[in-house]
Parts: sequence; C-alpha cells; structure tokens
Amino acid sequence: MKKDKPLILITNDDGITAPGLQSLTEAMSELGDIVVVAPDSPQSGMGHAITINNLLRLDAVRMHDNQKWYQCSGTPVDCVKIAIDKILHRKPDLCVSGINHGSNSSINVIYSGTMSAAMEGAIEGIPSIGFSLLNYALDADFSGAKKYAKKIARNILEHGMPEGSLLNVNIPKLPVSEIKGVKICRQAMAKWEEEFDERLDPNKRKYYWLTGKFINYDNGEDTDEWALKHGYVSVVPVKFDFTAHHAIPFLNKLDYHVD
Amino acid sequence: MKKDKPLILITNDDGITAPGLQSLTEAMSELGDIVVVAPDSPQSGMGHAITINNLLRLDAVRMHDNQKWYQCSGTPVDCVKIAIDKILHRKPDLCVSGINHGSNSSINVIYSGTMSAAMEGAIEGIPSIGFSLLNYALDADFSGAKKYAKKIARNILEHGMPEGSLLNVNIPKLPVSEIKGVKICRQAMAKWEEEFDERLDPNKRKYYWLTGKFINYDNGEDTDEWALKHGYVSVVPVKFDFTAHHAIPFLNKLDYHVD
Repeated sequence: MKKDKPLILITNDDGITAPGLQSLTEAMSELGDIVVVAPDSPQSGMGHAITINNLLRLDAVRMHDNQKWYQCSGTPVDCVKIAIDKILHRKPDLCVSGINHGSNSSINVIYSGTMSAAMEGAIEGIPSIGFSLLNYALDADFSGAKKYAKKIARNILEHGMPEGSLLNVNIPKLPVSEIKGVKICRQAMAKWEEEFDERLDPNKRKYYWLTGKFINYDNGEDTDEWALKHGYVSVVPVKFDFTAHHAIPFLNKLDYHVD
Repeated sequence: MKKDKPLILITNDDGITAPGLQSLTEAMSELGDIVVVAPDSPQSGMGHAITINNLLRLDAVRMHDNQKWYQCSGTPVDCVKIAIDKILHRKPDLCVSGINHGSNSSINVIYSGTMSAAMEGAIEGIPSIGFSLLNYALDADFSGAKKYAKKIARNILEHGMPEGSLLNVNIPKLPVSEIKGVKICRQAMAKWEEEFDERLDPNKRKYYWLTGKFINYDNGEDTDEWALKHGYVSVVPVKFDFTAHHAIPFLNKLDYHVD
C-alpha cells in the first residue's frame, strides 16, 4: 500500500440515504480518506445512463474527520464523473460503489447503476469495485459484506487491478460465520424474462409495470450464480472492452458490397 | 433467408420522431414486416437503463402496409422488453436500433441507448444490430447509411449471428460513393474526458452541464476509430458476457481470508 493515506471515492445507486452506502463508507474509512458522491435519489436500474439533456446539482451534505459527503442530482455514472472533475481534481486511488441492496450477479451487471459507476471509474483508469448484498431489505445485515468489502478493497489497494478490468463482488445473504470464502468467477449466462403487469389508471387508460423472472441457463461451477448459491462471495472481473473477438472470423467471411 | 417474411423489431434512442428511425424503417421494410417500438421522447445517453420505479405507457401511433408503429414512455431497453412481451408475443427474426444521429463507436457503446437496445435484443436471443451515423444533424443525409444497414441486416438474416454477440455498426459522414466499404473491427480504447460547465441559476445557486472531450488512446488499424477515420463503415461484434477472463489468474493468487 502507498505510504500516503489512499483517497477513496464512494458512490452507489440506491442514493445518499441508503444503509448500504453508510456500511461501505464505514468499511472503507479504515483504509483511507473518503469522498462520497452519491445520487440524491434512488437510481436503481439506471445502467450506464448519463445526464445530457438536463442540468446537474451537486451539494455538500456533511464533512467530518476523514469523510466528505456530497449528493448529486444525476445518475451513478454522473456522480463518478463530477466527483473527478469538480471535487477531487485528481484520480482517487480506489473507486467503490454500493453496497447495493440486492444482487448484481450475472446479467444484472448490465442493468446495474452500482456496477456502471464502478465501470466508469475503471474507464477513468481508477481501480474500481462494485459491491452488492443479496438482500433487498432496508434493514439488511451488512456486517459480513463490510468485512469482505474491506478485505477485497485492501487487496486491490496493495496489489493493483489487472488492466482494463474492474470487480463485480456479490455477497450472499448469510451471517459472516456461514460464508465459506471468496470464489473468483465468470459471469453466468442468465437473463430476465419480462412479465409486464398491465393495469388501468383512473381514466381507464392502460399502463404497465416492468416485472420479470430471473432465469439462469448456466450450471457451470465457475460462475457467480454457482458460488452465491453455495455460500461463497462471488468476484467476477469485468471488462469494458465489449468486443466479441470470437465473432470476427465469421463476420469477415460475409460480403458487404452495396450498389 | 427464411421463406416466411422475416419479422423485424425496430427501436432507437432519439425517439419516435427522429429521421434516423424513419430511414432505418424504410431500409428494413424491403426485408420484412416491421414493428417499430420507440421512445416517445429522446433518450440519448440512457445506457442500459430500465424503468423500475415508474409506470410505462405504450400507444399505437400508426399502422399501414407492413409497418406497425408504437411509442413507449420508457427507455430504449424498455421498448425492446415491452415489444416482445406485449406486442410481438414471439421472438422477432431481427432487432435493429437506430439509425442514431451521432457516433456510437469505441467507448460510446457503453453510454448509448441505441446500442443498449440492441444488446437487450441479443440477450433475448434475437440477432441484433445497432446503427449509427457520424452526423448529429436533424437533416443528416441517411442515404449511404440506409444502403449499408440493409446489406448488413440481410447478411445477418441469411447467415445468422455468432452466438452471444450483436453488432455495433457506425457509418462515416460521407456520400455513399465515397464510403470505401466495411471493416470488421475491435472497439478502440478511448474515453471521454469530462469538463463540467459551471453556471449560476437566477437564484445564484450553482448548476452544471456535462460536457466532454473524446480522447482516443488507440491507434490500432483494427479499431472502429481507424476504420471510420479512413472512410469505412465500422462493424464491431459486441458481447454481453463482460467477464475479464485475463484477470482471473491474478485474482486467484490473492488472499481473501477474513477474521
């Protein structure tokens, strides 16, 4: 670890008041100086959205000891961007996001504001980690998640992050004594099967709520879904180069001539 | 190509009134039956956002010949999901998104609603393509883009899409006679350097606009940025398994024991 105290940027997608954010800040404040820049309202499911057609607000919320807290009116990705440009004025040593209330394993990495914030940190060249607990409850027990978040973050501060990657860490809903350890995994192939709930408003006009059923097609024992189901913390290294190299030879065989 | 007329789902992120959507629909209507489900307002930069804390509206806009047009109050990804569940009731043969007014090359794939809609189609198991023209103008000339969109879509209808992938197609801002052809590419390593524009509202409170400068770190001649700069249509195969396999051995060497 560096001799100077590391500077750690923290954000999330459940918003500035979320207990998971408080838990992550407590865990990280033992490792370095903390700047929190979190959305001023819940931003779940925002994926990698950025705010380009609206203004952004950024307000200091509280400042004490080694913690500075700010709230921003934008998305989780906006929070990372504005933190770097307007608050930190330099790259932090680590960017962590969460602890999310609910899983971001397998395909959820794509929809997750928590993971998109971490991905934005990684694009900026910052070692970045997203943490999620498999428990949606507001009063979820984050004690196990905090221990593993601190351990994994310390590892990355000490040893660095492989180039072009970030970590997607999910923690099972178990007392810490029952968590079996950490598994480094690949993203399970899974999807949501949508089931839109159809309703009528008071004017008899139809509207819909997005709901869905999670379906895992992938029984591999090297996946995050397997690890979580068997009581392990799953760590999936994630990359932001989305190129499907395996598809290139096939595509090179096709004819693209137009008249 | 199948003997039945293919069923083609079309969406975008610039919204139902965008000329790029009209252009894509014209190109695709020569290949099959069309269902358009597009956002009722512009959704640029929405990434893979989904609407989970608000209701969705879905309204038929116009029906004629082989085209059915609907608008949805949600994000581009919502449009794909609701189209499959509430309109098509089956997988379409192709899902296309665009033609976006502006580039979605390299790192823009992550922020783009256009590409996220195509990625959602691919997750659903539908051969999917996002198209973007390097021209932000409302009155951009889509004639070259339409020709290449039709050719590439026909290729995929005839030959299929490699498993687990979709296509990110960008078309240079050139008359069709000056476009040199198609290059199959990898995603260039590039990023946006944010520069938040700081202003004061009438009450003297600060607010910010997100602006940025695109920086390409990657001079590889196999990248989409190179192809576009040299007058080619760039086709990058994209995957939604984000696992950074190269990072797994490094991560497996670290110690994860907690007390």
